[in-house]
Amino acid sequence: MLRTHTCGELRLEHINQEVTLAGWIQRVRNKGGLIWVDLRDRYGVTQLIFEEGSTEKALLEKASQLGREFVVQATGKVIERTSKNDKIPTGHIEIKADSLQVLNAAKVPPFIIEDETDGGDELRMKYRYLDLRRNVVREKLQLRHRMMQETRRYMDDQQFIEVETPVLIKSTPEGARDFVVPSRVNPGEFYALPQSPQTFKQLLMVSGFDRYFQIVKCFRDEDLRADRQPEFTQIDCEMSFVDQEDILSTFEGLTKHLFNTVKGVQLEEVKRMTYADAMKFYGNDKPDLRFDMKFVELNDLAKGKGFGIFDSAELVVGICAKGAAEYTRKQLDALTEWVKRPQIGAKGLVYVKYNADGSLKSTVDKFYSAEDLTQWAQAFNAEPGDLMLVLSGEEGKVRKQLSELRLKMGEELGLRDRNVFKPLWVVDFPLLEWDEETERFHAMHHPFTSPKREDIPLLETNPGAVRANAYDLVINGVEIGGGSIRIHDRPTQQLMFKHLGFSEEEAQKQFGFLMEAFEYGAPPHGGIAFGFDRLCAIFGGSDSIRDYIAFPKNNSGRDVMIDSPSSIAEDQLEELSIRVQLKK
Amino acid sequence: MLRTHTCGELRLEHINQEVTLAGWIQRVRNKGGLIWVDLRDRYGVTQLIFEEGSTEKALLEKASQLGREFVVQATGKVIERTSKNDKIPTGHIEIKADSLQVLNAAKVPPFIIEDETDGGDELRMKYRYLDLRRNVVREKLQLRHRMMQETRRYMDDQQFIEVETPVLIKSTPEGARDFVVPSRVNPGEFYALPQSPQTFKQLLMVSGFDRYFQIVKCFRDEDLRADRQPEFTQIDCEMSFVDQEDILSTFEGLTKHLFNTVKGVQLEEVKRMTYADAMKFYGNDKPDLRFDMKFVELNDLAKGKGFGIFDSAELVVGICAKGAAEYTRKQLDALTEWVKRPQIGAKGLVYVKYNADGSLKSTVDKFYSAEDLTQWAQAFNAEPGDLMLVLSGEEGKVRKQLSELRLKMGEELGLRDRNVFKPLWVVDFPLLEWDEETERFHAMHHPFTSPKREDIPLLETNPGAVRANAYDLVINGVEIGGGSIRIHDRPTQQLMFKHLGFSEEEAQKQFGFLMEAFEYGAPPHGGIAFGFDRLCAIFGGSDSIRDYIAFPKNNSGRDVMIDSPSSIAEDQLEELSIRVQLKK
Repeated sequence: MLRTHTCGELRLEHINQEVTLAGWIQRVRNKGGLIWVDLRDRYGVTQLIFEEGSTEKALLEKASQLGREFVVQATGKVIERTSKNDKIPTGHIEIKADSLQVLNAAKVPPFIIEDETDGGDELRMKYRYLDLRRNVVREKLQLRHRMMQETRRYMDDQQFIEVETPVLIKSTPEGARDFVVPSRVNPGEFYALPQSPQTFKQLLMVSGFDRYFQIVKCFRDEDLRADRQPEFTQIDCEMSFVDQEDILSTFEGLTKHLFNTVKGVQLEEVKRMTYADAMKFYGNDKPDLRFDMKFVELNDLAKGKGFGIFDSAELVVGICAKGAAEYTRKQLDALTEWVKRPQIGAKGLVYVKYNADGSLKSTVDKFYSAEDLTQWAQAFNAEPGDLMLVLSGEEGKVRKQLSELRLKMGEELGLRDRNVFKPLWVVDFPLLEWDEETERFHAMHHPFTSPKREDIPLLETNPGAVRANAYDLVINGVEIGGGSIRIHDRPTQQLMFKHLGFSEEEAQKQFGFLMEAFEYGAPPHGGIAFGFDRLCAIFGGSDSIRDYIAFPKNNSGRDVMIDSPSSIAEDQLEELSIRVQLKK
Repeated sequence: MLRTHTCGELRLEHINQEVTLAGWIQRVRNKGGLIWVDLRDRYGVTQLIFEEGSTEKALLEKASQLGREFVVQATGKVIERTSKNDKIPTGHIEIKADSLQVLNAAKVPPFIIEDETDGGDELRMKYRYLDLRRNVVREKLQLRHRMMQETRRYMDDQQFIEVETPVLIKSTPEGARDFVVPSRVNPGEFYALPQSPQTFKQLLMVSGFDRYFQIVKCFRDEDLRADRQPEFTQIDCEMSFVDQEDILSTFEGLTKHLFNTVKGVQLEEVKRMTYADAMKFYGNDKPDLRFDMKFVELNDLAKGKGFGIFDSAELVVGICAKGAAEYTRKQLDALTEWVKRPQIGAKGLVYVKYNADGSLKSTVDKFYSAEDLTQWAQAFNAEPGDLMLVLSGEEGKVRKQLSELRLKMGEELGLRDRNVFKPLWVVDFPLLEWDEETERFHAMHHPFTSPKREDIPLLETNPGAVRANAYDLVINGVEIGGGSIRIHDRPTQQLMFKHLGFSEEEAQKQFGFLMEAFEYGAPPHGGIAFGFDRLCAIFGGSDSIRDYIAFPKNNSGRDVMIDSPSSIAEDQLEELSIRVQLKK
């Protein structure tokens, strides 16, 4: 090694030892015949000292010429510092350097490489390898590593076997669009990149693997959105001979293990909520439970009092923001404007202030008496000092709008603390959801999800009411993962495809291999997939590895791997003997 | 869970417990009013018993109708077996079943699902999910899992950070051909799939990650050969502030750790050999050291005695096969035919038998006296009973031919025991190798490998003689991995590209991002990549995951993921709005 110790390792116990360190120059200070140099590596920072008189002149000269980010190797004796720095672990010692070698010089970096930097997003993305030198950025990737290690440790302890499923696969259309990969060895044929290893893992269950997992890259050729990347990482799992409860408890265990070992947080028990309740009380299938602020339906109290907007609405529903009665007129106007933005789409906002003196003041005083509003307050369980916010309209839409407003109020009132974690299992998802565009039912989870046995008869009469053995893990309003108990017999799987509008031929062509496998002794099984990127983000880590290596922050949709867009030149395509034309 | 225990768990200590098991029917035997059922899962086999008289009639009836591979759940009491089976861990107990539920029936499997099967390769590949039920096959994937777990444990202990590098990248041409992936979001642009994360990991060193690793999929769009698949898995590593010795000792440590924890083998110290010696003594840069049989050069002894073939040969070289003097004429003729096959390409084979009685008998007695041959025998260190085999011709070719013959003799003499492991570091590889086809030098490892400092002047005068700081780990004649100390400064990297025949523009266009990064403080660094598939094969596991999930044994080159070739139908391409035409 070009060093005897790292820059984060030396302590008072090393005093008088001759050591060699190597790293990057963080800072050079030169004052009154003394030169201090902060030497940095991944493990920490150690101070080197050069002193006029006791340090050789040539060495002093060399030290004074060091620039930021030079890579050097220095040898010297560990001495005790006269003025100690308690902020860093190596702050009680320094190195009296007696030799110094520049291993590589460095140009002046385009931005300051410290926790607080002057580099804008674009510049830091262009020089991603320099941005990654900053502790705050590098630590996000280290956290990601820790999460992977601990996930594998837990899964291995639970007897799960990690199996690498292929990346170059046969195309099996799922929800999103596959990337396709032309093969030059087999002209005219294509591989697809997997959107998930779903069918592979089900086949592994048919094979008797019993417990499978994989931390695996998945791919979708879709527009990039804030929370979508063309490649993303999943903790993918499947278990045999289980019911839903077994899966929930196993992965509640994993979640707790990760919080405990990686973050030092003792996670509370994961609550359960049905999809129906989540929609009813939070207007959202991934409610943020760091704060309560449940929906209260007001149809009974608010209709029939002459207020036309409410009278004609399918649903009148509101939330009670604790302690927000002191919101100013200006703040309330801003909220009203906010809900009316096209992204939210509400027509307007009704509010009722429950003043500290017990009086009630609303924007609809013309239609509702003090007594009426007192009844509202009772329905909201409101107290003096609270602010009630009410929306109305078509049920589905108004719930979504109020869900957004609830989250905004939570944000404004400081109820969404990043260091508080409220996990939740949302269960009993509908099996099917109606798609307005194609005018047919789609699988809400995927076509392999099993309906609840008691709801199967409803498939013929009221498909939208059929509940699935499907579940999502939600933490702080973020869907971390989801899964289901699968169908494991051919007749049920065929029935499912039929209700999804597949012809028998289509179903056979696309998924015949799976249905055939079910005929050779498929065990009952189910599984789950966690979005590893989102989970890391919840922990404060990188939310996407591409974000940290390849993609610009602005999600412009162009791959800027390293420093330039990823286009293959015309002549290269020629050489590759592949030509691709995109239809208008 | 649908079970209280697995099928591998119950022992005498569980006697009298009421248990529930679930699994697959391995076998049903019905004799004299007794029915025995072997129930199998991943963990083992447990015997269920049903007895006329004490078992309910309906249950007896049900048990008698079970077919192979049915999936069942059975409940009953653990009892001691009257006739114990010491061959399996559960062989001292059985379950007196009192209930039985068929969870899924099974068609008769197309081949027998036992360690010894009647299924041919093609049939087993078609029903891969059934083949994977066989212990011998499943255990290969379990070994692979164990290898991955232990690799990560070791690397984590050594402070390596696993970083997932992107799969969809900008194309950076290396040796083989990239797969290209058209992007629909950015029409006309393409991603490439990485042949290795080489430049990413070097950038991570520039970023100060210090120690990086990854178990990662790599891709090559090449013809499938026995040891090449379009996707393969690598243990990929890079370290900063190291010299070659640090890397060798770290990965010797990993290799020993894996042998110890996964295979229970205490690996001996890994020998070192220069590339020059490997070629000189074994004709091969990956010699199998499970047996000695070194090359002995005979130019001095064999030339000038009137044997024209030797006289005109550039090199006369042979091996001594210990104890093979008793090879019959028929065996020797077969060997001669073997070396003359086009795959080997020798013109003929000269042999000298050192008979047990001390006499020497050769195919070239006409030209060489007994005294001459005695001198040969001394050169070979031969003893009575040995067989000397000699080839001649153009040096490069004859070494390759003799290397093949040496391996064949090792095989025939039983010297290549699969349970003996002889690891070797081959070091001091040439930096460049001459390519006859393109008539220029290519990088033997890759263009980022650093030349030995003392050899740099030779770049101008004798490029083929420049040695690299490059090394390979070889076990039993298989190249497990290779790596190098990298170039870490722009001038040397530019010099390298120049000698590889790149114009300055080309070098800048393709690798400018890396050379630019070197200017901002790149540490000295180096690394290695292990072929994970080959390593698993050495351990007796799966040599390729695709082999076990997706590819047919016969390597026909067609992707038969699950059960059919991976072609996208014309109408699907239409729908994908992509059209690809392949040039003649």
